[in-house]
Amino acid sequence: MTVEILSVGTELLMGQVANTDAQYLSRLMAELGINVYRHTVVGDNPGRLLEALALAAGRSDGVLLTGGLGPTPDDLTKETLAEFLGLEMVIYPEELAHLESIFAGWHRDMTPNNRKQAVFPAGSTVIPNPNGTAPGCICQQDGVFYAVLPGPPGELRPMAEGFLRKWLLNKSDTRLVSRMLRLFGLGESDLAYRIRDLIENQTNPTIATYAGDGDMLLRVTARAATEEDCRVLLEPVIDELGRRLGEFMFSQRDESLPEVAVRMLAERGSTVAAAESCTGGLLTSLLVGVPGCSEVLIESCVTYTNASKIYRLGVRPETLASHGAVSRETAVEMAEGIRRTSGADWGLATTGIAGPGGGTPDKPVGTVWIALAGEEGCEAWKLSIPRERQIVRRNAALQLLRRLTLAL
Amino acid sequence: MTVEILSVGTELLMGQVANTDAQYLSRLMAELGINVYRHTVVGDNPGRLLEALALAAGRSDGVLLTGGLGPTPDDLTKETLAEFLGLEMVIYPEELAHLESIFAGWHRDMTPNNRKQAVFPAGSTVIPNPNGTAPGCICQQDGVFYAVLPGPPGELRPMAEGFLRKWLLNKSDTRLVSRMLRLFGLGESDLAYRIRDLIENQTNPTIATYAGDGDMLLRVTARAATEEDCRVLLEPVIDELGRRLGEFMFSQRDESLPEVAVRMLAERGSTVAAAESCTGGLLTSLLVGVPGCSEVLIESCVTYTNASKIYRLGVRPETLASHGAVSRETAVEMAEGIRRTSGADWGLATTGIAGPGGGTPDKPVGTVWIALAGEEGCEAWKLSIPRERQIVRRNAALQLLRRLTLAL
Repeated sequence: MTVEILSVGTELLMGQVANTDAQYLSRLMAELGINVYRHTVVGDNPGRLLEALALAAGRSDGVLLTGGLGPTPDDLTKETLAEFLGLEMVIYPEELAHLESIFAGWHRDMTPNNRKQAVFPAGSTVIPNPNGTAPGCICQQDGVFYAVLPGPPGELRPMAEGFLRKWLLNKSDTRLVSRMLRLFGLGESDLAYRIRDLIENQTNPTIATYAGDGDMLLRVTARAATEEDCRVLLEPVIDELGRRLGEFMFSQRDESLPEVAVRMLAERGSTVAAAESCTGGLLTSLLVGVPGCSEVLIESCVTYTNASKIYRLGVRPETLASHGAVSRETAVEMAEGIRRTSGADWGLATTGIAGPGGGTPDKPVGTVWIALAGEEGCEAWKLSIPRERQIVRRNAALQLLRRLTLAL
Repeated sequence: MTVEILSVGTELLMGQVANTDAQYLSRLMAELGINVYRHTVVGDNPGRLLEALALAAGRSDGVLLTGGLGPTPDDLTKETLAEFLGLEMVIYPEELAHLESIFAGWHRDMTPNNRKQAVFPAGSTVIPNPNGTAPGCICQQDGVFYAVLPGPPGELRPMAEGFLRKWLLNKSDTRLVSRMLRLFGLGESDLAYRIRDLIENQTNPTIATYAGDGDMLLRVTARAATEEDCRVLLEPVIDELGRRLGEFMFSQRDESLPEVAVRMLAERGSTVAAAESCTGGLLTSLLVGVPGCSEVLIESCVTYTNASKIYRLGVRPETLASHGAVSRETAVEMAEGIRRTSGADWGLATTGIAGPGGGTPDKPVGTVWIALAGEEGCEAWKLSIPRERQIVRRNAALQLLRRLTLAL
């Protein structure tokens, strides 16, 4: 099956937003084994939308339309689709009642404009929208289907992931099971190289790689008649990926590194505290981003000055004087100092040169020492990340979290 | 002038990346006063690219092509364009020499594949690529121009912002001057409402609004024969925007809130320290994200537990017992405590309930107290941000930075 994605919205053509809807739907189609051969964007212009519909209908089995379902006169996607298919626009009483109940809940009057959101091309199947007032719909004619979804990603995604996904699977009587594996410490091209034969020969399961936010994601998807059959297909592929990438794989259940760290600490009843210099609160902020972090995090000190390192953590002035703030010795005293002063089970520390200034021939920009102190002592690692300031900081924080999860 | 954007790359159709190149070029065209009526994406498939070129050439004055300039056999954009225009592909000796010098600098042999990157449709103008081995090019035929740029945003953007922008401006003998204004504390629809008459009646200068990362951006662009004329056109519009939005406008030179805060502190020779609870290092991390922050930041304490608030900052146990950690009283003692213990001129503090758990009827999720302590005392503000955890944290941090810049 081949579909194309047709997005409607002048804001896309003005560059006010990126077309993340097309990306999202493309990933979903890839996972469902459906080919996407084209994305098209047109503005809120019925003439150009009609042209685009005619081209798409002539070459694809389905068209996924996004945007233009709002209450304003500019929003014309359903109306234009009805015109293209020669269908009447009819009011759906149940949808109207639902819409009225939403407005009643908001204590707001419904304007005549809003009624438009309960009107659909005759015969279309409604796609419920749990997060907004614009339901979508699906029409079928001459063997081509047209699925219409609203533009806001927060509305489109649950509708696509829920209703549309199921509708497409029913169309093909197939079941799908995906597993998301997450890797750290491996670049995109290095990953592609290590599994190139698996990627080249993939049919079912399929393997897709995505660059995450500092990590790499691998989605493995099997298609079969039952979910059990899918799992049987997945197993050997996951095993093989584990053999090749095990040292880099930190999650087989789509958790981020901070999520894994917080979960593992909580499972062990352990606590953590951090002393940050170059990462400047980012490491702690990654942990605090995980709900439930208060069970495991005691505190952190962003000791940006030498005085602060001495006063807050008990780093010795002689250590700073003889080795400098960016050194194994300082990192170790910081990690041990925050562990001791906070009473946490684990002490984390970072100290480095994030740039753009501050580098020297000995310690160029991107030189970072990270340290991990625990009951059995303290280990430290030197990192070299010759990159832009925010990347140095983020990468150093993630590397230290990876070390923590390996130690747990 | 009307152009369309034609992006080439199977990775876009697989959803591996969003088409941010189309967004970027669309913004640039909007700024240049050039209409963009369509975006199209096709895969690395010469047949579908030829079809898309034929459609585009028939309806637009220009086509901006992105992607497919790499060294692999899949990369066929220039070759397909040459076929479409009936042009030979010819080697450009200067480009070849330049390419050879890049590889020599890397101490790597150039493969025959890489020679392809010095080959262009006959007669085309080369667009230099300062950040990669794939130069772009511009061809013109029958009144239509075709500009070809590489896909990686880090290569495309400087080429578009530099060469292509100038080439398009020369084509029209126009000069452009833009000013970027940044606003905080105003939602997108609220902003649109306050300046709707200016937006509706805009011709020259044009006003575009963008949602930033927690803030709002307004770009005002004037077109005229000289830059001086542009500035004369800009002045009254900027003044009017200042009158309407002044209280929300924190920068007229495209700085972020943390950048404004660090610059203002540095200009005054002042220092700052932070005590964070619910923001959990994010506030400090935003400051540390600004190069030169070490001049103004002394330290921060992420005092996540009550014990830590008492031990690190001197918050009184009675205050925590009688008012709770999320209270004006605790926020004030945190801000005064970090100011006193660090010796900084300004003490910042946040304490709140970021969710998803931890809310009570009295203090629902999204309740945050922020406080700012200075020489003349301490002020505190209660925020109510009934949103998702990361938004609560980010918004609270930015609100406090806004308070700091207003106090400076």
